[in-house]
Amino acid sequence: MSRPLRPEEVQRAEDLFGPLTQALRTLVDVAIRSDADDPDVTRAHELIEQATELLSTRLEPEPFPVRTTTTGRILTWGNVAIGMRNAVAPPLRLQRDDTGRVTTDLTLGVPYEGPAGHVHGGVCALLLDHVLSATAHRRGEPAFTGTLNVRYVAPTRLGRLRVQAWTEREEGAKTFAAGHITDADGAVTVQAEGVFIRPKVKS
Amino acid sequence: MSRPLRPEEVQRAEDLFGPLTQALRTLVDVAIRSDADDPDVTRAHELIEQATELLSTRLEPEPFPVRTTTTGRILTWGNVAIGMRNAVAPPLRLQRDDTGRVTTDLTLGVPYEGPAGHVHGGVCALLLDHVLSATAHRRGEPAFTGTLNVRYVAPTRLGRLRVQAWTEREEGAKTFAAGHITDADGAVTVQAEGVFIRPKVKS
Repeated sequence: MSRPLRPEEVQRAEDLFGPLTQALRTLVDVAIRSDADDPDVTRAHELIEQATELLSTRLEPEPFPVRTTTTGRILTWGNVAIGMRNAVAPPLRLQRDDTGRVTTDLTLGVPYEGPAGHVHGGVCALLLDHVLSATAHRRGEPAFTGTLNVRYVAPTRLGRLRVQAWTEREEGAKTFAAGHITDADGAVTVQAEGVFIRPKVKS
Repeated sequence: MSRPLRPEEVQRAEDLFGPLTQALRTLVDVAIRSDADDPDVTRAHELIEQATELLSTRLEPEPFPVRTTTTGRILTWGNVAIGMRNAVAPPLRLQRDDTGRVTTDLTLGVPYEGPAGHVHGGVCALLLDHVLSATAHRRGEPAFTGTLNVRYVAPTRLGRLRVQAWTEREEGAKTFAAGHITDADGAVTVQAEGVFIRPKVKS
C-alpha cells in the first residue's frame, strides 16, 4: 500500500487528472465516430503516443496499490464504474437518500453501445451491479457481489438514463438489493436483484 | 443507414483506426497510473485535445449509423465488448468451435478494476453477457438478452482470463446459454446462465 495522500495532494490530483480524463472520454468517443482524412488520423495517433510517453515518466506499479488519504478515505480513482481517473468509467456519481436508496443519473454515448443505438446489455448489468452493491457498502466494509440476476424488459436506448437501487432486506453480512434502469421517459428498461456480502474483517 | 463500405474501405479503416485505438487503450491505462509532474500532465492534456480536434474534422453523426459492407457484413467497430474502434472494449476476440461453444482469452488491466487488484463484478457480468449471447447469434439475426443470472464463486484477479459459453437448449427463438470465467490457474471464478432471444424479422 502506498503512503496516504494529504488533502492538498488529493486536490492536486483531482484538479489535474479529472479534466484530463474527461478530455480522454471525448477522445474515446470521437475515435469511434471519426471519418477524418488519413493524415489527420495518423497525426492524432502520434499525439496519443506522445501523451502516453509524457504520462509514463512516472507510473504507479502493477498490481496497483490501494491509495488512501490521511483522513482515512479509500480513493477509487481507477474504478471502472465511478473512477475519476478512469476514462472507461462514465463515471457514475452516486447519491444516497435518507432511506438508503441509491440513485445515479447519467448519459451514455456510443462508447457503451451494443445493438445499434442501444446500450449493451452487459453495460446495463455493470451499472446495476455497481448501484445495487452501493446499497450494501458500509464505511470500511466494502461489499462484494454474491449473485446478480438481471431481467431485460425493453431495449435501453443510448442517452439519458437513471439507475436506482434499494435494500429489500439484510441478513447478517448479506444485503438483498433490487433496482432498475429507467430511460428519459421514466420507463423501466432493465430490472435487477442481487445478494451482496460484506466479508468478515480479520481481527 | 450509411452507404455500405467496399472491402478496401474496410481494410483502410482497420489499418488506420485499429492501431490508433490500441494506442488509446494504453493511454487510458497510464492516465490511471500516472504520477508524472504537473507540466507533463498539462502537456499530455493539451495533446489529447489536439488529437480530438484532428479526429473531429469529420464525424459520423449521432445516433450512430449502422455500418455495413458491400459483402453483407455488419460492422461492430463501436461495440463496447468487441469493437475494434472502441477503446473501452478490451476488445474480446470470440472463437467458436464445431459444437457451438464460444471462447475468448483476454488480459484485463487496471481500467477494468473494481475491488483493489480485482476485476469489477459488473465487468464480469458484461463479459459473460456478451459471450453467452454469442452462442445465440445467427447471421443476420442478432440475439438480445432476456435474462442473465450471474453467480460470483470467487474474486477474479486482474490479469489473464478465459470466458466460455455454450448452449444448454433452444426453444424457438430462445437460446438458453450458460458459461463461466476461469482464471490463469483454470479455476472458475464466476458462473452465468441466461436466456437470449432472436426477435422475429419483420416481413
